[in-house]
Amino acid sequence: MNTKILLPEDQIPKQWYNIIPDMPGPLAPVINPRTLQPVTPDDLLPIFPMALIEQEVSHQRWIDIPDEVRDIYRLWRPSPLYRAHRLEKALGTPARIFYKHEGVSPAGSHKPNTAIPQAWYNKQAGIRRLATETGAGQWGSSLALACNFFGMECTVYMVKVSCTQKPYRKSMMQLWGAKVIPSPSEYTNAGRAILAHDPDNMGSLGIAISEAVEDAATHDDTCYSLGSVLNHVCMHQTVIGQEAKAQIEIAGCYPDVVIACCGGGSNFAGLAFPFIADRAAGKNVRCVAVEPTSCPTLTKGVYAFDYGDQAKMAPIAMMYTLGHDFIPPGIHAGGLRYHGESPLVSQLLHAGQIEAKAYTQNACFEGAMLFAQSEGIVPAPESSHAIRAAIDEAVLAKEEGKEKTILFGLSGHGQLDMVAYDAYLSGALEDYEYPEEKIRESLERLPKVSL
Amino acid sequence: MNTKILLPEDQIPKQWYNIIPDMPGPLAPVINPRTLQPVTPDDLLPIFPMALIEQEVSHQRWIDIPDEVRDIYRLWRPSPLYRAHRLEKALGTPARIFYKHEGVSPAGSHKPNTAIPQAWYNKQAGIRRLATETGAGQWGSSLALACNFFGMECTVYMVKVSCTQKPYRKSMMQLWGAKVIPSPSEYTNAGRAILAHDPDNMGSLGIAISEAVEDAATHDDTCYSLGSVLNHVCMHQTVIGQEAKAQIEIAGCYPDVVIACCGGGSNFAGLAFPFIADRAAGKNVRCVAVEPTSCPTLTKGVYAFDYGDQAKMAPIAMMYTLGHDFIPPGIHAGGLRYHGESPLVSQLLHAGQIEAKAYTQNACFEGAMLFAQSEGIVPAPESSHAIRAAIDEAVLAKEEGKEKTILFGLSGHGQLDMVAYDAYLSGALEDYEYPEEKIRESLERLPKVSL
Repeated sequence: MNTKILLPEDQIPKQWYNIIPDMPGPLAPVINPRTLQPVTPDDLLPIFPMALIEQEVSHQRWIDIPDEVRDIYRLWRPSPLYRAHRLEKALGTPARIFYKHEGVSPAGSHKPNTAIPQAWYNKQAGIRRLATETGAGQWGSSLALACNFFGMECTVYMVKVSCTQKPYRKSMMQLWGAKVIPSPSEYTNAGRAILAHDPDNMGSLGIAISEAVEDAATHDDTCYSLGSVLNHVCMHQTVIGQEAKAQIEIAGCYPDVVIACCGGGSNFAGLAFPFIADRAAGKNVRCVAVEPTSCPTLTKGVYAFDYGDQAKMAPIAMMYTLGHDFIPPGIHAGGLRYHGESPLVSQLLHAGQIEAKAYTQNACFEGAMLFAQSEGIVPAPESSHAIRAAIDEAVLAKEEGKEKTILFGLSGHGQLDMVAYDAYLSGALEDYEYPEEKIRESLERLPKVSL
Repeated sequence: MNTKILLPEDQIPKQWYNIIPDMPGPLAPVINPRTLQPVTPDDLLPIFPMALIEQEVSHQRWIDIPDEVRDIYRLWRPSPLYRAHRLEKALGTPARIFYKHEGVSPAGSHKPNTAIPQAWYNKQAGIRRLATETGAGQWGSSLALACNFFGMECTVYMVKVSCTQKPYRKSMMQLWGAKVIPSPSEYTNAGRAILAHDPDNMGSLGIAISEAVEDAATHDDTCYSLGSVLNHVCMHQTVIGQEAKAQIEIAGCYPDVVIACCGGGSNFAGLAFPFIADRAAGKNVRCVAVEPTSCPTLTKGVYAFDYGDQAKMAPIAMMYTLGHDFIPPGIHAGGLRYHGESPLVSQLLHAGQIEAKAYTQNACFEGAMLFAQSEGIVPAPESSHAIRAAIDEAVLAKEEGKEKTILFGLSGHGQLDMVAYDAYLSGALEDYEYPEEKIRESLERLPKVSL
């Protein structure tokens, strides 16, 4: 029996799936943080090209993928769908477990799926340089890769402490030609203001976002690029779910449950949205977003208007949030440490179309170890959340004696995250209690939006 | 035009190709280092199972791959063959460049191709535990993976300085259940003798080999496992070349030149041997083994009997050698720092069946950068040697205005070797002059074998 289900390159999707026309009800407006009025395209033009602004609000269900983008996707897409025979055996489950492996991209995660088109649309708009922020470096390295392919410059504001603690992804960005600037930096007003008052500040994702947005807004030839949360970013990731549908059909299956980890939301959206589309057509497929208990946006947050960033410079969106100044504990799944959530994913959860689940990091690494020992692949700490949830579904199927088809997203490999495994193996990995008090305090500072 | 040429799992080779019956002349005997007489199977039985000893000397051209081994190969094989469209464009060459990507294995290199069958044959022989040595960790992690799949214990003697400098692959071994022992250790006589006299000794590959062999020889339930050099190891790797032949045929091509990096020789053998077999059938294919100028075994060594290891405990073989006590400079391509060479590869070179070429590490990293920027994939420092040679062939084709088909082996990815790229990018990478004096001295101490 085959382990991998592969598709030929001509089956790389030719269109992205835009879920907006299929959403349960209209989208809430996005609010300008200065005027507290709905954002207009003109508000966004200093930092995004018009093509991406149009995608952000488009009601067209299918949007063509440019040939130049598909040609680069060919370097690793279609990504393989695996049947987890060995994991099933290890669990003794009657469930069929499939996983879609996005760690095969050159950057090792799903992030290039959107980095490539974002760079391309900017290039088409005459933009010469992209600025962005990165924490652990997954997004920064993906955008560096994308800019490299289109001959664009790339400036990555990398949280200063990560530059030291995670030097490898910094090197990958440099290898692909990006300029990596430890943030806070002397390059921006935002950075200078912080350093003037605190020269030893080690940075945060919020500060790095402020620097990257300022850089883009103050340079005509430069735009800003975001790796998750936004509608068009979620849409670019739908190549994952479209391929997975074709592949699981080849295996003669359809999933009862689709599981993906959820930080800003684009990884979950990428795998799940094409299946959510099937629900309208009567398919009974559950979609489960998995997050860490230490940053439980979907499971413990509120559905409300909130700022996208701590500095209150990013637009205000209707989403699940823990409050814009909630700072989660320093877990190893850095990609899941966001106080908010994709507005699309949030609205789907609020409408009961999807489910959410949270796990502690020790529970996730326990699952990751079993996965690595049965399937071989070392998963990223973020992906381990989906693995854990998939294992629990498979164990439940065993207890109930039910056949069931489980599909989960392996968003990336973990070969650059071995420090986290060291911590787990040595018993040094901390589990954080749900920080109820901190979240309650933070939620008191939500913006007051009245439309 | 397609970028990747994929094969379905049923085209994973069903047999390994054993080149012994097709060698130009009989093999020189392997010599017992204590008796200076030819090694007998009985000499090897304390450390290898009979099935592998038989493979080592077999004259059977095709040897069946056990189903259990092929089932594990399915986790990543057949590996993709890439057409390097973007690299060709960057070079402006009329040459067609293909590369076989072995970095897709769970351990990130070609090494599991032999680790899996070695573990399996040992398991069949009732062996409970395997002992081995590792430097940077590529081999140790591959054997850990293999033992994990068959429920065997794995003890890896890891050069002490590498445990500190390369902690990530150590963690991968532990993740897959191996016991990693910094060498020299208190576990063996060899280790204790060194520590008694030099407690701060940071270890070497030679010492680690001695410890692993002693461990295997002194425990009935334990065998030793070697990651390159030996005939059966080269043979296990021929799945690479067999698949590549089928894939390049799908592309309607046949290579004019096949290029692979060469340390102990198994990577080169794996890709090249199936093509060398075609030479007898009249095909005009050149095969080029590429090594570092700092350890120029094939290009500056002598073809002579020499010990396999510095401690003179391993068998003596007829091979290209720089002398068993030659210690190459500390280049980043750790997998190419071996004083000797596979006897099969050596004999082929001596008979003029293959070519050899050497490059400095800066030249290789320059090629690796161009490759990473055009093809996306970050190559292992070892693989960068093949890349450099392939680029030079492609540039030559351009100068000569010749169409030409070039196939090279991408033996592994370099995401765990970013320290080396950092050194290159910061200009801190040293090129070592060909250490003529050191080699001359070392060659004076070859063993005197008279048969």
